[in-house]
Amino acid sequence: MTVSLVGAGPGDPDLLTMKAARLIAEADVVVHDALIDQRVLDLIPVTAERIDVGKRPGRSTPQEMISALLVELGRQGKRVVRLKGGDPFVFGRGGEEALALLDAGIAVEVVPGISSSIAAPAAAGVPVTHRGVSAAFTVVTGHRQAGEPNVDWRALARVNGTIVILMGVAHRGTIASELIAGGLGAATPVMAVRSATTDGEVVQRCRLDELGSAAIESPATIVVGAVAAFDLTSATAAAHAAHVG
Amino acid sequence: MTVSLVGAGPGDPDLLTMKAARLIAEADVVVHDALIDQRVLDLIPVTAERIDVGKRPGRSTPQEMISALLVELGRQGKRVVRLKGGDPFVFGRGGEEALALLDAGIAVEVVPGISSSIAAPAAAGVPVTHRGVSAAFTVVTGHRQAGEPNVDWRALARVNGTIVILMGVAHRGTIASELIAGGLGAATPVMAVRSATTDGEVVQRCRLDELGSAAIESPATIVVGAVAAFDLTSATAAAHAAHVG
Repeated sequence: MTVSLVGAGPGDPDLLTMKAARLIAEADVVVHDALIDQRVLDLIPVTAERIDVGKRPGRSTPQEMISALLVELGRQGKRVVRLKGGDPFVFGRGGEEALALLDAGIAVEVVPGISSSIAAPAAAGVPVTHRGVSAAFTVVTGHRQAGEPNVDWRALARVNGTIVILMGVAHRGTIASELIAGGLGAATPVMAVRSATTDGEVVQRCRLDELGSAAIESPATIVVGAVAAFDLTSATAAAHAAHVG
Repeated sequence: MTVSLVGAGPGDPDLLTMKAARLIAEADVVVHDALIDQRVLDLIPVTAERIDVGKRPGRSTPQEMISALLVELGRQGKRVVRLKGGDPFVFGRGGEEALALLDAGIAVEVVPGISSSIAAPAAAGVPVTHRGVSAAFTVVTGHRQAGEPNVDWRALARVNGTIVILMGVAHRGTIASELIAGGLGAATPVMAVRSATTDGEVVQRCRLDELGSAAIESPATIVVGAVAAFDLTSATAAAHAAHVG
């Protein structure tokens, strides 16, 4: 039996892939993260077992235990869906779980999901690339753990592309300082979006040198670069963006 | 009436979002690119008009004409789906078309799609991020046009994350040289995938200093970095990757 590592996308169940929706509907057991939208969880059949392994402060399931659980469920021959926010391979630990399953001789299938790194800015009217404005974008985690490779923020500032920071609210002041030290202008546009594609969506805009002191609630997706001034959800703001571009 | 700019994902129609599939099924007219998978085009209702504006060598529709066409169709009050490969905002010109429509007073809706920049590597068993191996990834176009912002490849080499190059086959030798000049090791793993998620999928692997002379057919997605050595589609190769990680 195959264990499916499935991306649930940014929140809106309409942004599930056809394959994800079908796998959820046919699952015997769904192992999911804490931040999966309730409307997506509502698609899990009432007959299916659901296991919340969400990593929340003070109540987390270590990654090793999640991998062991998936191996155990896979061995039982159940139709297992491991449901992750966004995409399994964008800071989703999908690679670790796939390795644990393959190591145990269990087939794995990875089903990509709409990544919040692109869709959250899009929901706020910000394109991560735009002709004449940005020919590259970098998605980076602002939450650094021991043993993680060190991202060189100053080098990143010189790449000349859009920067999308996930899990970066706590360290946003340090990150902004490093990017400015690397050469990004203090007035570089910044956009932060929270709960993208849901009713609770909040969009905030500021300059890069204001990011450290801006009141931004976690979790949020932070976009740094000229495209962050765009708002393709409104005609007036878009006209402004066209001017910038 | 709203014009919908819809991401078609990497090829497999099962990777369309629920929303994309519904909008296609309900469309009066679908304006699509050349590289949309035939299985996706087959979902367009026979009663709907379909317009191929694919930009192929020697037979391209200028972007201004595409935007003007969308405005015209939008004004006619038709249910217009502008179908793009991958995601509309990842080198998809979605921003330009949205601006043209908003400027003409026509409402626009952007429906994200699974981006090939993440899903093509995933289909080849390569995660763009992996704990302890890569804490960032940059998606960049290797096809530079006049007026485009200049990506600093040497700075990009120092960021210490995964590099995903789209439309980079033609200039892969120059890109590899620049990345090595920027500090990336000559032996840095490289993976190239063509026609990801389709029956014609081809995966190639080499070292960074071999990229210029490797026989890679365009279009392909090229991944540079430690994760490019991963193959999470096979137990043997995955064990090797675990060792690297």
